[in-house]
Amino acid sequence: MSNFNYKDYIQDHLLNINGYKSLTYPKELSDFIKLDGNENPYGPSNKVTDALSNRNDYQLYPNSIDELKQTIADYLNVQPSNIVCGAGADAVINLIFSSLKNNYDDMQLATITPTFGMYKHDAMINNIDIDELEQEINYRPNGYYFDVDAEPQIALIFASPNNPTGQIMEKDSMLKLLDKGHMVIIDEAYIKFSQYQSYVELTKEYSNLIVIQTFSKWAGLAGLRIGYGIMNEELASTLNAIQQPYTITNYAMEAAIISLNDTEYLNDNVKKIIETRNNFINQLVDITNITPIPSEGNFVLCHLNKGANTDFHKFMYDKKILIRIYSDAILAKYARISIGTTDNMQKVLNAIEEWDKK
Amino acid sequence: MSNFNYKDYIQDHLLNINGYKSLTYPKELSDFIKLDGNENPYGPSNKVTDALSNRNDYQLYPNSIDELKQTIADYLNVQPSNIVCGAGADAVINLIFSSLKNNYDDMQLATITPTFGMYKHDAMINNIDIDELEQEINYRPNGYYFDVDAEPQIALIFASPNNPTGQIMEKDSMLKLLDKGHMVIIDEAYIKFSQYQSYVELTKEYSNLIVIQTFSKWAGLAGLRIGYGIMNEELASTLNAIQQPYTITNYAMEAAIISLNDTEYLNDNVKKIIETRNNFINQLVDITNITPIPSEGNFVLCHLNKGANTDFHKFMYDKKILIRIYSDAILAKYARISIGTTDNMQKVLNAIEEWDKK
Repeated sequence: MSNFNYKDYIQDHLLNINGYKSLTYPKELSDFIKLDGNENPYGPSNKVTDALSNRNDYQLYPNSIDELKQTIADYLNVQPSNIVCGAGADAVINLIFSSLKNNYDDMQLATITPTFGMYKHDAMINNIDIDELEQEINYRPNGYYFDVDAEPQIALIFASPNNPTGQIMEKDSMLKLLDKGHMVIIDEAYIKFSQYQSYVELTKEYSNLIVIQTFSKWAGLAGLRIGYGIMNEELASTLNAIQQPYTITNYAMEAAIISLNDTEYLNDNVKKIIETRNNFINQLVDITNITPIPSEGNFVLCHLNKGANTDFHKFMYDKKILIRIYSDAILAKYARISIGTTDNMQKVLNAIEEWDKK
Repeated sequence: MSNFNYKDYIQDHLLNINGYKSLTYPKELSDFIKLDGNENPYGPSNKVTDALSNRNDYQLYPNSIDELKQTIADYLNVQPSNIVCGAGADAVINLIFSSLKNNYDDMQLATITPTFGMYKHDAMINNIDIDELEQEINYRPNGYYFDVDAEPQIALIFASPNNPTGQIMEKDSMLKLLDKGHMVIIDEAYIKFSQYQSYVELTKEYSNLIVIQTFSKWAGLAGLRIGYGIMNEELASTLNAIQQPYTITNYAMEAAIISLNDTEYLNDNVKKIIETRNNFINQLVDITNITPIPSEGNFVLCHLNKGANTDFHKFMYDKKILIRIYSDAILAKYARISIGTTDNMQKVLNAIEEWDKK
C-alpha cells in the first residue's frame, strides 16, 4: 500500500548474501549412519541425560551464566573474566566479528582456504573483507602455517585442527603472527581429538590471542549449543556487554557443567574416537581410489582418485551413510567423513571398498 | 607481550556499553514465587514435556527449521516464506536491527519509553540512534499511540501490549505510521493475553510491517528460546540468509510444533491467567498505597503511592515473592508483577496488604 522499499532500510552489503547451507536430516534418520556433522557417536555423558530428563523448567528464562563461566574457568585454569560464552562456538565467533571494525574502517580479516565456511559467512554479514590464503591441503606433516606481511591491524582466524583438512596450525607460525601484534582467533572446536596442546595457556601471555572452544564435539552436546572464547578480560568484558541475554539455556548450562565433572568418561570416548580414526585411516591407505589426509580431528578428509564427489556422496547415501562434500572448487575431489563407532566405520569401509571396485 | 590494544580492533560505539542486566535466580528458587519474568505459571503443554523427555539426540546438530516454519505459517495463515525464526523474540529483533542501515547512513529508530529495554540495547550495539518518545503511562483507555513527523526513513519498534505498561498500540496510530511508509516493527510477545487482535494479518497488506511473536509466554517455553517474525518475503529472505544456522535446537522446534497442535490446552491456561490478572487488578484497586495500571499482558504495572520501589521489592523478596523493578527515572515509582497461579496471586495480595498497612 505504502511507498516502501525494504532496500532503503537494509545495509547494502546484506542484500545479496547467500545463506549458509546448513545440514538437513534425511526423513528416516535412524536408518542412516550420520557422519556428515562431526558429531560424537557416543553422545553425551549419561549423567547429562539423567539430569536433563529430571529438569522441568521450560517455562523459565535461563538463569545467569556465572556458574558455567566459573566451571569453565576452573577447568581451563583461567579467570571467569576471561570467558565469553555463546550458543555454540559459531555464536561466539559471530559475536567477535560483529564487534570488529569493518569496511568503514578498512579493517580486514584473513584466514586460509579450505576452512570452516562460517568464517567467510560471518565476515560477509558483518561487512568485513576476508582474505583467504589458499592452502595446499596436507602441506606439512606437523600442521599448516600462515605467513602474512600486512599492516598490524588485520585480524586472523584459524581453525586448529582445521575443518575440513584436519591439521593444526603450527605453533611457530601462530607465535609469529602474535608477535607482530595481529589479533589472532584460534578455533579449537576439535582440539580434544588432537595429539597437540590447546593454545589456551598462551592467552595469558598474549592479549591479542582469542581461543574458541565448544562442548559440541568432545562432550557430545552439539544439539544444546554451548561454546566459549578465552581472551584478555578487557575484550571479554566488551563482548559480554554486547551479548544477548538468555542465549544459553538452563539445560545447556547444566549439561556443560556436568560434562566438566565427568571428563574421565568423556575422555575415554574421545580416545576411542581417536583410535577408530587412526585405524580407519590405516585401512583407507590400502584402497586404490581414495587417499585419506592425516587428521587431528574426529573426521577424515579423503581425496577421491576417481569420479565426482557428488557421485561418491550418492553412492554412500544409497548405502545409508551420510558424509560431507563441498561445492568449493578446492574441495571438488574431496569428501569429509566423520568418525563414528567402530562398527559403523567398518560398514563405511565396506562401502568404500565396494565403491573402489566399481 | 605484543603492541596490542583491543580498542584498535573494536568498533568505537561498542567500547562503553553497559550490558543488559538479565535476571538471576535466587539460590533456592523453589522457595520463591517467581513473578519477575512474565513467565507462564502453568508451564508448557504436558505433551511437550513428555515428548522432550523421550528425545535423546543432544549430540546432533539441530535439523532444518523448515517444518517449524511451515507449522507456524499454517497456524497464522501466512506463507513459510514470510517467517524468520530465532532463538527467542530477542534474537529476531536483534537480527532485524543488525540488518538495518545505521549511523553511517543516518538511519534512525524510534520507540516509546517506558518499554522493553532490549530495544535500546540492541539499537546501541548495532550503532543505530534510537529516539524514545516519553509516554504518559496509561495515557488512553484503549492503548497508546505514537505520532511522528519525520523523514520516511525511520524505523519504529513498539511492543503491543507494551512491556511494562501493558497497553496495546492503537491500530489507528499504527496505520498512520504504516501509511507514511515507515518500517514498523510490532513486538507481540504478550498478544495472547490481550482482548485485541494481533496485527499479523496486516503484514499481507503492508510490506513495511513486521510482527514479532514468541512461544515464551503463552506456550510456557521461555527456557527453550523460540521466537519468530512475520514480514514481507523479500525482507524475510534477506534475514534468513544472514541468520546463523543451528540457533534453534531440535528440542525447541519439537516443543513449538507440539504447542501449536495443543492450543486448546494452552489457551485454557491463557484464559486462566487473564482471569487471574483481572481479579488481581480488581482487588488491588481497594488498596490505598498501590494503583494498578490496566493491562493486556500477563503482568500488571503498579504505581506505588508510598516509599521507594527498592523498599517494596525488598519487602516482597523477604516474603519470598520475586517482582520486577527498574532503575529508569520514569519507572521509579512502579513495580511490575507477573501473573502467577490463583493461589500464588492471593499470597501476593496478602503481602501487599501487609505492606500497605505498614
